[in-house]
Amino acid sequence: MEPRISLVTLGVSDLARSRAFYEQLGWHGQEVQETVFLQAGPLVVVLWSRADLARDCGLPEGEGTGFGGIALAHNVRSPAEVDAVMETAAAAGAAVTRPAATTFYGGYAGVFTDPDGHPWEIAHNPGFVLGEDGSLTVPDLG
Amino acid sequence: MEPRISLVTLGVSDLARSRAFYEQLGWHGQEVQETVFLQAGPLVVVLWSRADLARDCGLPEGEGTGFGGIALAHNVRSPAEVDAVMETAAAAGAAVTRPAATTFYGGYAGVFTDPDGHPWEIAHNPGFVLGEDGSLTVPDLG
Repeated sequence: MEPRISLVTLGVSDLARSRAFYEQLGWHGQEVQETVFLQAGPLVVVLWSRADLARDCGLPEGEGTGFGGIALAHNVRSPAEVDAVMETAAAAGAAVTRPAATTFYGGYAGVFTDPDGHPWEIAHNPGFVLGEDGSLTVPDLG
Repeated sequence: MEPRISLVTLGVSDLARSRAFYEQLGWHGQEVQETVFLQAGPLVVVLWSRADLARDCGLPEGEGTGFGGIALAHNVRSPAEVDAVMETAAAAGAAVTRPAATTFYGGYAGVFTDPDGHPWEIAHNPGFVLGEDGSLTVPDLG
């Protein structure tokens, strides 16, 4: 697993309010299917419903469940690489909370949690450009 | 505020266990004062006591307090720029949970939370190299 983060997803309770907040800070968002993508240099910050994010990570949602409302993602170049990273993580003691499988957006991804329950999605997403240098670029979603 | 993340700090309960986990994934950590820094491409992942991280963010710690056990940081080039970003965030509705002040490591930083309580530290840290492209590099801490 290369040492890098591709996306940071912040679970939010009011998407429009959160988008407005980050845009007031000078960031630029693109919204697709109730999800806002903000390019942040070589990575992407995503705003998404906290409940949907928990469900997507295979974690219980709500106060006191251990879910912190945030998820990291690490994008790779092929489905086989997703499987390889998931296996490495499991061997290192990670809990696999969502086994790797085809995703609704046409990619392939799985989720594990680290020893403190921080979720990592390992994803192959053919729709987002993963550069040679590991940078991830949101396409024009308009 | 430039759209970028400089550091992602993961609150952990057992630093040695977490460091071993990330090193088994192929990452490389440097430990200083019970804090582990892992270079992750153009940004830095930090492993630090969850309780200390909450305290440092000016947030209550523990299950059900709303603290998710993770903090984002955005490094800037001067103390004046810290003040400017903190003011922009406050004007956008952020809660200032730790007003900007000199830090124990010789820098200057403050913390705000976004509308969902996600903490952001805005920091000027003269000890870490902030590149022209916004990348942050951990120096050799040995």
